[in-house]
This record gives sequence, C-alpha cells and structure tokens, in this order.
Amino acid sequence: MTEHSLWRFSRALHRAINERQFGEVEPLIDEDVEWTIHGPVDLFPFFGARRGKAAVLDVIRQIADKVRVHRFDRESIMLGVEAASSMLRCSLTMLDTNKPVRLRVAHFAQFREGRLSSMRIMVNSHELVEQSVYPPYARMVAVSA
Amino acid sequence: MTEHSLWRFSRALHRAINERQFGEVEPLIDEDVEWTIHGPVDLFPFFGARRGKAAVLDVIRQIADKVRVHRFDRESIMLGVEAASSMLRCSLTMLDTNKPVRLRVAHFAQFREGRLSSMRIMVNSHELVEQSVYPPYARMVAVSA
Repeated sequence: MTEHSLWRFSRALHRAINERQFGEVEPLIDEDVEWTIHGPVDLFPFFGARRGKAAVLDVIRQIADKVRVHRFDRESIMLGVEAASSMLRCSLTMLDTNKPVRLRVAHFAQFREGRLSSMRIMVNSHELVEQSVYPPYARMVAVSA
Repeated sequence: MTEHSLWRFSRALHRAINERQFGEVEPLIDEDVEWTIHGPVDLFPFFGARRGKAAVLDVIRQIADKVRVHRFDRESIMLGVEAASSMLRCSLTMLDTNKPVRLRVAHFAQFREGRLSSMRIMVNSHELVEQSVYPPYARMVAVSA
C-alpha cells in the first residue's frame, strides 16, 4: 500500500515552511493548482486565492518568512482516494515578533496523480487577532475599521 | 443506494434551526454524541464542547433562538461510509438585530448506524465579529480584553 499523497505533501510543506527547503514540495504541486486560504487579506497578504504552481510556491515562501511551525495535532481527518480533509490545532511562532500563536485550521485538499491540484484552507483568524499578532491599538483599529 | 446520513442530518438540522421543528433531528443524534463548535464562548454561549443528546439538542435550540439560515453553499465536501466533512459559506440573519451575516464554516461529522456520533465545527468567528454582531464599542472590548 503506497503512502497517501497527503502525508507526503504535508511533510514537504512543513519542511518548506520551517527549513526554507522548497525542493521537496515543488514537484508535489500540480502546474494548474487552485489554492485559497480563506481569511482577511489585510491581516496577511498571503491569504486569498491563487492559481498555478508559481503563485502557490510564492505563498509558501511568504508563509515561511512569517512563521515557524512547532507542532500540529490533527483533531479530525478524512482520507479519500485522491482527496483529504482535516482539522488541525497548530502551534506557531510569528518570526517578526517572536510571539507564540495557537490556532485552528481546516483544509480540503485534492490530488491529481499524487500532486496537489486543489487546496482550500480556513484559518480561525479571530484567534490570530486575539493572540497579539497586532499590538493592542492596531487590533482595535483592525476590528473597528 | 441509500441516502448518506449527512444529507438526512443536514436537512433535519436546517429545519430545526429555521422552523423550530426538533422532532426530525432528535432521532438522528446518538445518545452518546460528542459535539464541539470551536469558537470563543464569550461570543456565543452555545460555542464549546457538549456530550450527550440532550446537551446537543439544547445547543440546537439556542442556535434556533439566535439565527435564521437563508442559504448555504458547500464549497468542499468529502463523504465516507459513516463520515462526512465539508466547508460551507452560510448566509444568516441574527434574529435579535435582524442583521445579515455571511460566514464560513467547516465541519467533520461521524455517524453510527445513521445517527450523529461526533461533530466538530469550526466557525470563522473573525467574520462574525467584523460583521457587527456586536456594536462597535463592544467589539473593541471583546477584542482587546
């Protein structure tokens, strides 16, 4: 039984973010991939929709510039033939402020011949705002704007 | 081919929330169900973890007191034998303020003999806060607290 595409992609993504090694994740992304991180783009410019491998690699590089992932616990998971969805609790450090952040993420992924063809990610951005990603005064502006 | 438990449950839940008809959803919930809506419980008291059918029916009643669902669009879905996950974009009205709210929800459900045995829901509560569920001053307090 071969390994599910999710595990291979997940390991390569983790390595790309934490070690800035993009060589492993690059061949696991379909040229025509559709990718969306649902969340307010004013919070992080790499939220939003992207199309194509180059754009997605750029998003992964921007995430790598911003965070380091310490651990993630999968709370729920579903695996299909070329599909996977899961809900994760992630522990991160924001590299610019050195602040720890814990947040929940849900994702739905589809693969084509083992390569990621579609990814939809939902981040609980309320947790991000609450946990001092912004300093307090900016948080107020951000929410009341 | 019989209908997937998700469709039956989803239809009954929708009816419970919008019409306050709980008779259809009640037999579709396992006595020992585990249920969590991940979100800040200070925003809505029915967020959080519950165990058992009575507690879950109570949560559904509280949701019915608070919102009316106009439509939901499934953006992603995975169906397993007795499991389902999906990401939805929902249009609601908050009954106390009559305000429309659009928000994204992800859920992971498990069924046992056709009855819901586990449900984990993630609500993008940032969208809730942004869309004037609270008046502006309360939103600031809530976020800066």
